[in-house]
Amino acid sequence: MQAIDFWIEYGSTYTYLAVARIGKLAAASDVDVRWQPFFVMPIMAELGLTQGPFLPFPSKTAYMWRDIERRAALHGVPFAKPKTYPVNSLLTARVACIAADEGWCQAFTESVFALHWTKNILIGTDENIETALTGLGQSPSALIERAQTQDVKEKLKQQTARAKKLGVFGAPSFTVGQELFWGDDRIEEAISWALTH
Amino acid sequence: MQAIDFWIEYGSTYTYLAVARIGKLAAASDVDVRWQPFFVMPIMAELGLTQGPFLPFPSKTAYMWRDIERRAALHGVPFAKPKTYPVNSLLTARVACIAADEGWCQAFTESVFALHWTKNILIGTDENIETALTGLGQSPSALIERAQTQDVKEKLKQQTARAKKLGVFGAPSFTVGQELFWGDDRIEEAISWALTH
Repeated sequence: MQAIDFWIEYGSTYTYLAVARIGKLAAASDVDVRWQPFFVMPIMAELGLTQGPFLPFPSKTAYMWRDIERRAALHGVPFAKPKTYPVNSLLTARVACIAADEGWCQAFTESVFALHWTKNILIGTDENIETALTGLGQSPSALIERAQTQDVKEKLKQQTARAKKLGVFGAPSFTVGQELFWGDDRIEEAISWALTH
Repeated sequence: MQAIDFWIEYGSTYTYLAVARIGKLAAASDVDVRWQPFFVMPIMAELGLTQGPFLPFPSKTAYMWRDIERRAALHGVPFAKPKTYPVNSLLTARVACIAADEGWCQAFTESVFALHWTKNILIGTDENIETALTGLGQSPSALIERAQTQDVKEKLKQQTARAKKLGVFGAPSFTVGQELFWGDDRIEEAISWALTH
């Protein structure tokens, strides 16, 4: 059995479904998930993209919202369409790098996504980060200050470089060794791969 | 229970998995599938795209091939990577329109995709169309001539317009009434929707 690296982009829509689902699925199969924050924008920019695969196209964007709502219902995941899209996820990703180093990335990530996707407290806002940190017993002001130090900025760049080296081009992604899975709808396959390889 | 309209683009890679899987899945759940040829290029062109969502991006294209191979293995679908991509699927789609009118679209579609994806007899080539038609007891020369008549060209345009009106922007797609599902990985959800709505 191998561990799963779960590559999290805080501005990604479908990543919400993965964040909401993977904890229970992994626990049920006893697979170890390593929560890995990264920032997808630089990877997309190298591909010549300034936006994700849906936003430039109205029919695709309409489908994306309906598909997420439908899959949330299917999997019992709470869902309220956020009032703004896209959002700026950079500071959240930097705080998440600290959380990952200190072992509370899963709790932080589940909290910021739940606030965004069930209470319309949007990822990227001070209220979102502060509410999540306070709920975890962390000091928002101290964490936000640390998140903007050179060390933490560098850590997020390194995470993004690691993701890119593994072939990651979008989010959510999952890697098991060198094996890449893209999309919330590949969680089950990634878990099965981790269990059998 | 409702029927599923299965929107088939003959030049689409992931459509192979759907073509190879949907017959058995639908039969097992007793859902009626209507095989609907269309041509995705005009729809993509209106979105400003000249290629599918993978081809312009090497990392995405590499992932696509690996994902298809892995999902083929997972579902017991024979797979040999075709030697050419993309292909010109227009004539095949036109023949398929005749097949749909005459009730043999499923058999024709399964055959042309199997030739492409297991024997490297590529969709869009004369050999592919002729082999498939001969295997079905049809006359290749007569069908290819009919496929290039104005009536059949118009039929394919109408099919494409119907798909677009339902919000289809890629392939494979499935519609149950107005409900759209995109991707081979949504077959199971489309069938479940058809059974319960």
